[in-house]
Amino acid sequence: LTARLQGFGTTIFTEMTRLAIQFGAVNLGQGFPNFDGPDFIKEAAIAAIRAGANQYCRMSGLPELNRAIAAHQQRFYDLSYDPDSEVTVYSGATEAICATLQALCDTGDEVVLFEPFYDSYRASVTMAGAVPKVVTLHAPDFAYRPEELEAAITPKTRAILLNTPHNPTGKVFTRGELEHVASLCKRFDLIAITDEVYEHLVYEGSHVPLATLPGMRERTVLISSSGKTFSFTGWKVGHTCAPPALSAAIRCAHQFVTFCTATPFQHALAKAFVADDAFFTGLVAEYRARRDRLCQGLRELGFGVLAPAGAYFVMTDIRPLGYADDVEFCRMLPEQVGVAAIPPSSFYEHPAAGRHLVRWAFCKTDDVLDEGLRRLQKLP
Amino acid sequence: LTARLQGFGTTIFTEMTRLAIQFGAVNLGQGFPNFDGPDFIKEAAIAAIRAGANQYCRMSGLPELNRAIAAHQQRFYDLSYDPDSEVTVYSGATEAICATLQALCDTGDEVVLFEPFYDSYRASVTMAGAVPKVVTLHAPDFAYRPEELEAAITPKTRAILLNTPHNPTGKVFTRGELEHVASLCKRFDLIAITDEVYEHLVYEGSHVPLATLPGMRERTVLISSSGKTFSFTGWKVGHTCAPPALSAAIRCAHQFVTFCTATPFQHALAKAFVADDAFFTGLVAEYRARRDRLCQGLRELGFGVLAPAGAYFVMTDIRPLGYADDVEFCRMLPEQVGVAAIPPSSFYEHPAAGRHLVRWAFCKTDDVLDEGLRRLQKLP
Ligand SMILES: CSCCC(=O)C(=O)O
Ligand SMILES: CSCCC(=O)C(=O)O
Repeated sequence: LTARLQGFGTTIFTEMTRLAIQFGAVNLGQGFPNFDGPDFIKEAAIAAIRAGANQYCRMSGLPELNRAIAAHQQRFYDLSYDPDSEVTVYSGATEAICATLQALCDTGDEVVLFEPFYDSYRASVTMAGAVPKVVTLHAPDFAYRPEELEAAITPKTRAILLNTPHNPTGKVFTRGELEHVASLCKRFDLIAITDEVYEHLVYEGSHVPLATLPGMRERTVLISSSGKTFSFTGWKVGHTCAPPALSAAIRCAHQFVTFCTATPFQHALAKAFVADDAFFTGLVAEYRARRDRLCQGLRELGFGVLAPAGAYFVMTDIRPLGYADDVEFCRMLPEQVGVAAIPPSSFYEHPAAGRHLVRWAFCKTDDVLDEGLRRLQKLP
Repeated sequence: LTARLQGFGTTIFTEMTRLAIQFGAVNLGQGFPNFDGPDFIKEAAIAAIRAGANQYCRMSGLPELNRAIAAHQQRFYDLSYDPDSEVTVYSGATEAICATLQALCDTGDEVVLFEPFYDSYRASVTMAGAVPKVVTLHAPDFAYRPEELEAAITPKTRAILLNTPHNPTGKVFTRGELEHVASLCKRFDLIAITDEVYEHLVYEGSHVPLATLPGMRERTVLISSSGKTFSFTGWKVGHTCAPPALSAAIRCAHQFVTFCTATPFQHALAKAFVADDAFFTGLVAEYRARRDRLCQGLRELGFGVLAPAGAYFVMTDIRPLGYADDVEFCRMLPEQVGVAAIPPSSFYEHPAAGRHLVRWAFCKTDDVLDEGLRRLQKLP
């Protein structure tokens, strides 16, 4: 293993999924639904396989999918992107993040991240030879301190990577915060990389893409994931929207990272993005009910619940129940209680900041949420 | 675009596929079949989608697929790999190459490549901060000069990347060459990275994985692609076999490059790898007939045909027909003749060495090969 990847080890998702399987635990760990998206999307994938759409696709994405993504950005955010030169498809948002950073960061460049962060950010910045500069979202409300963000920006800063709705905290960045981030990007000529994979899962307020703010479209790489939006995380399809020069650069990296993405699923998701509004409002309503069910149950068990405004995770303070260490807690949980969760300290540069927190996924059917809560009554 | 990716531009595959589509050309360019693999594999993918195998898979691969790959290595090469700790699944062999180089190359390390090479090698070495050292396979027989390989090895050499059966030349490395490469790896303590995606397409001699040579299994990362073997290039599934320490390192990178690979196709390919011997012998027989058909036709047209021993491409010398520049020739071809091919000079560090060659893919049905040959009669 190279020097730059030392210390990254195995992602917490792999470790916790393994424990979940080993002990037959109710898995409220990694963020994947225990149900699939709509049948019409599955049937479209099946039809594509049967019709012989099984060979390499265009490197930048299936033309129909690129068009459907552009139409989606127009419809929901009034953002216009050219499907051919500004939309690109990847083997998941994780690949989009990796390719974006490889394309845009030179050795020694700095990238500002907000902690806690999805752990691939730090690794992808490091693989690109760049240096992460971390700004903390402070519990319990996960606001950042403006002066801490400003202090993180140096002459070497190349980009700010912003994730909203935010994993693992469920924070939805406010318009005021977005305006502040935008003003810094413009003042210091930075690129914004926005991970918006939970864009359709917002329960309080609404999702505002940073690219919609004045002067930001031209300097923003917007990343999202149809796997997350349509509940097919195992299909591994993500995308970016970015102005032509940025898109060209990212494609240069993408073509050498995976070259292209599974063709049949691109056909299927091209149909998904044009789903009617009822699909998207229904999605939010269902997830809101799941969020409320899990939050309520965890509250009754005595956890300090930090109810999320978006995404499909809830963070809890474990100290009211007498615990102090999230990793110990989450390693104990599958075997002793039969439930799996994620210890967020691995999403911090300074793990101490997350030690008292545990993340639970609510992208699960009611029976699974209920069974998880029932088992948690046995907490030692 | 970062300094390290300057000059990589758009892959030749994208450019030639675009021209092929624009001019309705018979596409003998990028290496994908115009037919699909067996129906039973498609049906297995469809069954997996219907059965709900649509969420994230294990990061290292679906257990059934890892086991099927290990069984395949045992059956064909008498190579034993532990499915859990030594086999890893990727979103295509391209991702496997990218992750392997990210994991194993520190900044400034050198990696020996043979030119002409699949163009992602050089880019992936560069993205990892390492330096490609290129050894030429000399036309017309594409042998390398032992002293040139030895001279390419320095105290900074970390790995030798070997592709056999070889794209674009169709060369199958001889046992003598493999023994020479192995002796250098052992003498200088180098890692061997072997791209064996065309392992089942050998027409003269037989494919010998470098890992089967004494002392090599423990220092070799063997890469292959079920997309190529089973004619589903658009499913984007590849794998590595490597000893536990190397596998652990590569997985560390893989988990941050794509994390995991399309689940339904992993289910399907787990069934494919255990296909009976008749499937594999049938595959070779069919491809041999296609090779002979295309070589014969190109010879009759006056090309200097360098008949390949493996893979699914044939290289031709265009000078007998009065052409001198492969890029000019291949840019002219789709519009003027209605055929697309690949100019191999983009697979050389020093393009001059490939200027007189053009690569044609024969992973096509007879009607397509015949129509391509018919159109080539109109060559200006
Ligand atoms: C590959 S894990 C992607 C992110 C996620 O689902 C999680 O944080 O659980
Ligand atoms: C993504 S292109 C992979 C290699 C290949 O098929 C080719 O060389 O044509």
